Amino acid sequence: MDSRNVRLAVIPGDGIGAEVVTEGLKVLEAVGTKVETTTYDLGASRYHRTGEVLPDVVLDELRGYDAILLGAVGDPSVPPGILERDLLLKLRFEFDHYVNLRPVKLFPGVATPLGGSRPEDIDMVVIREGTEGLYVGAGGVLRRGTPYEVATQESMNTAYGVERVVRYAFEKALGRPRKKLSLIHKTNVLTFAGDLWARTVDRVSLEYPDVATDYYHVDAASMFFVTQPERFDVIVTDNLFGDIITDLGAAVAGGIGLAASGNINPDRTAPSMFEPVHGSAPDIAGQGKADPTATILSVAMLLDHLGLTEEAARVEQAVAEDLVERQTGWASRTTHEIGDDITARVVG
Amino acid sequence: MDSRNVRLAVIPGDGIGAEVVTEGLKVLEAVGTKVETTTYDLGASRYHRTGEVLPDVVLDELRGYDAILLGAVGDPSVPPGILERDLLLKLRFEFDHYVNLRPVKLFPGVATPLGGSRPEDIDMVVIREGTEGLYVGAGGVLRRGTPYEVATQESMNTAYGVERVVRYAFEKALGRPRKKLSLIHKTNVLTFAGDLWARTVDRVSLEYPDVATDYYHVDAASMFFVTQPERFDVIVTDNLFGDIITDLGAAVAGGIGLAASGNINPDRTAPSMFEPVHGSAPDIAGQGKADPTATILSVAMLLDHLGLTEEAARVEQAVAEDLVERQTGWASRTTHEIGDDITARVVG
Ligand SMILES: CC(C)[C@H](C(=O)O)[C@@H](O)C(=O)O
Ligand SMILES: CC(C)[C@H](C(=O)O)[C@@H](O)C(=O)O
Repeated sequence: MDSRNVRLAVIPGDGIGAEVVTEGLKVLEAVGTKVETTTYDLGASRYHRTGEVLPDVVLDELRGYDAILLGAVGDPSVPPGILERDLLLKLRFEFDHYVNLRPVKLFPGVATPLGGSRPEDIDMVVIREGTEGLYVGAGGVLRRGTPYEVATQESMNTAYGVERVVRYAFEKALGRPRKKLSLIHKTNVLTFAGDLWARTVDRVSLEYPDVATDYYHVDAASMFFVTQPERFDVIVTDNLFGDIITDLGAAVAGGIGLAASGNINPDRTAPSMFEPVHGSAPDIAGQGKADPTATILSVAMLLDHLGLTEEAARVEQAVAEDLVERQTGWASRTTHEIGDDITARVVG
Repeated sequence: MDSRNVRLAVIPGDGIGAEVVTEGLKVLEAVGTKVETTTYDLGASRYHRTGEVLPDVVLDELRGYDAILLGAVGDPSVPPGILERDLLLKLRFEFDHYVNLRPVKLFPGVATPLGGSRPEDIDMVVIREGTEGLYVGAGGVLRRGTPYEVATQESMNTAYGVERVVRYAFEKALGRPRKKLSLIHKTNVLTFAGDLWARTVDRVSLEYPDVATDYYHVDAASMFFVTQPERFDVIVTDNLFGDIITDLGAAVAGGIGLAASGNINPDRTAPSMFEPVHGSAPDIAGQGKADPTATILSVAMLLDHLGLTEEAARVEQAVAEDLVERQTGWASRTTHEIGDDITARVVG
């Protein structure tokens, strides 16, 4: 980063999005980053007001920022899928967020539903492909609503798309103590796509002799997330399998309230976008009940992406300390109070 | 059933398959069913010997049985996917096993990795569609091995295929105390297929006013399997999502050593096939270490399918009693000993 301000686009979105983003920005400011934020009112209310989800002019404007912070999108008043596809997925595809980076890490002091697991057992990074697979939206429907209806979905996978995310994953694995990379797929059933993924990992692995690789079918991997999470260090997987196992990962690592993510364009041809893994949770919106921790950890990922590694580490450390404290009295703090407490630790 | 013998085709398969099937048959005999078994040597060794996986004449012969009991297929000496696709999946498709029935039930006395869950929290039945979706094998590859490779997989879903399994699921839900049916899919991304599934559940639900329905995205459902399994009673889902969540279900319900399944053709136009959810586990094959319980519970499902409900209940009861006993000394019993102990309880 040069010394100019970070230009950040903020999309609070729907439901609890605005509340958690407020706390994320509070922490971002406290860390001392010079940041200039512009808020975009994308989401359900704009959709209802204007019928638009993400107009092209807004998309073009967003392209000019250094990064995007997103709260959550989705509201029961909007037909399911519209905001997800035309806003969230559109940004991922248009900005070529081919790395969806999702750490699965059990912080000390955090309760996991897995009775026998300790923090050292659950410490992985899932690298989910973000621009291909079943998420491309290909497919169709024939004779809709009749007894003869046929509906298809097509998963599209390219050497170009798979290789770049696999390379990113090897680099990530190389930088971690265990240096282990697991491919998760379903090669015995998805033979065409699975073969491309497996061959790509094999080929690129020749360039990374220090990284150990292995392979799990997605069904077996899901089982091991619960029974032996210590098997995993860095995981690379396709868009849909990554969607499923990262929610599962969030569950075993203390819940969706703590799971952060980055939709990353490593080539920096467009801004990367950081967001909590959780959704808009309309049932608890506006009540100060949402946990802003996932957003604050997403801010740490954002700082890291901008090269502000020291700042990123300070935010993560502040969260880690707060999580240890939480073992008593956690339920009684509001969204703001959690944000304030973490902010105070960042300031030091 | 008329009073003639049950004609059962047995496919022990690979790895631990033969060992667990031996115990399953022991229990089947002990329960007093008049059963005539014929063993088929399908699997890795036949493949190596003859190059064949499932010759058409064998397929036709199998069609004549009342049911099939399968141990496990798959061996490291055979290229991945061959036995799975040309044997296991071929049988499911050829014999129209459109219901893949997989109970996820925590028996009293069994340890679950979920620290806080009790048997009453984990008691569901997953009904996985078995003849459509991404399992049809559609797709292709272009420019294989070049930087321009494209690999596709197509999920095919029909009103015919979805409706029949959804109807089965409603009937199943109606017969259970909670009368609750959850659809698991990913309607916000797989819009064509998801729409067909969701509309079908909505439409059929009008005929089942006593069954409550709800919907979960597969990612959220995976999380809830771990954090709140008590949400689920009967689940209906597509082939791939069912594959993933039933392995996850096996993990939370005490492990893959206990998970039974039935590949069912409810119209009885071909034999149904019963098999443990686990694989061939070549690493422990031939050592008497495999747990035959999943196979024995699959035998209970087989009995139930044949209308021998009292016999099925006796087998399940024997397993339940054995599982309570296991809390001490479990690890020390061999495959045979477990089979013998359960058999002794069946005999009474
Ligand atoms: C909202 C939905 C489209 C999205 C996805 O499936 O990617 C979400 O589940 C996620 O994981 O970010
Ligand atoms: C072996 C494999 C093809 C199979 C499947 O994916 O259905 C297995 O995982 C299962 O669940 O029975």
